[in-house]
Amino acid sequence: MSGPALDFWFDFASTYSYPSALRIRALARQADVMVHFRPFLLGPIFKAQGWQTSPFDVYEVKGRNMWRDLERICADLSIPFRRPEPFPQNSLQGARVALVGLAQSWGEDFCEALYRSQFGEGRRIDEPATIAAVLAALRVDAAPVLAAAQSDAIKIELRKETEEAQRLGIFGAPSFITADGELFWGNDRLERALLWAKLGR
Amino acid sequence: MSGPALDFWFDFASTYSYPSALRIRALARQADVMVHFRPFLLGPIFKAQGWQTSPFDVYEVKGRNMWRDLERICADLSIPFRRPEPFPQNSLQGARVALVGLAQSWGEDFCEALYRSQFGEGRRIDEPATIAAVLAALRVDAAPVLAAAQSDAIKIELRKETEEAQRLGIFGAPSFITADGELFWGNDRLERALLWAKLGR
Repeated sequence: MSGPALDFWFDFASTYSYPSALRIRALARQADVMVHFRPFLLGPIFKAQGWQTSPFDVYEVKGRNMWRDLERICADLSIPFRRPEPFPQNSLQGARVALVGLAQSWGEDFCEALYRSQFGEGRRIDEPATIAAVLAALRVDAAPVLAAAQSDAIKIELRKETEEAQRLGIFGAPSFITADGELFWGNDRLERALLWAKLGR
Repeated sequence: MSGPALDFWFDFASTYSYPSALRIRALARQADVMVHFRPFLLGPIFKAQGWQTSPFDVYEVKGRNMWRDLERICADLSIPFRRPEPFPQNSLQGARVALVGLAQSWGEDFCEALYRSQFGEGRRIDEPATIAAVLAALRVDAAPVLAAAQSDAIKIELRKETEEAQRLGIFGAPSFITADGELFWGNDRLERALLWAKLGR
């Protein structure tokens, strides 16, 4: 029998997924829960809700508070924060590279580092140079990875994961789903989701 | 010099304001922070964002998760939960009566009890009988209170409070605002808001 597990669904353009990505591995280790990183694209899900871009751009007062809130959260966690421009950024390439890495050994490190680039250093993750720099820092050879990220297999996998997210009722990120189907939405639900994964309630 | 203070902005139709209303007085006492209850109406603010009703009704998958999330939160807090029908309910009369009570001694008790009626017992707060029952349980004479709630003074006060909420950048409820202007949105930010009220950071 396998132990408690939690699926961590995220989009690299999602602001509140940044603190979650940096926290989840240590918290899961403490809670003795196995975490499965599942990058997907929020774009098609937002479109189905009638938004053409991030709701934080659609609703400006809400967006303004989100940036301040994220800044406070990062300060509390002592993690770097720098608001990226533009926002939201296209996360397609990041998600595809992450899928390549998650099938190898460096996927989780890549996810954490790409979030750090964007929201800790204010870099553009839609620029190939940013992804290349992250791979270089992880000592991963970029050329075969970037080729694999453009393969049909990875493109189809990301599309399927995004469809699966929608099927599961995911409407934002980060989202955490336990083996028994409990969906927790938001960075502030991470601890509770881990506890549910462990206790089943 | 006065001590640390926090404004608690809420609409009786707001689901996540329910656990906040039941938690805030004990938490504020522990934190040695003075809380100011400020009922307002979300309707005009939602309309300004283009919603004709609660966003939990506009976005159905999000709404479904909210009810489940609220149920889990109430279970964790050991407070009763019963989903009210219909939702959202008209909170105008409740807010006006709350303003009458907050200028007297029973306002906070009324707020807590009205939230409990709606989200703990599934009652309709847009029915005069519910408000009357809450007042009776608090041993408040309903007739003069209901008359005062219809006065121009109270109607104007509620309108001004709602305008003030909008001016302050409030876009949802519950919202917590410290004396130095930090806005925290959501039941899950209550503890952090109290700490900010106390430390100024």
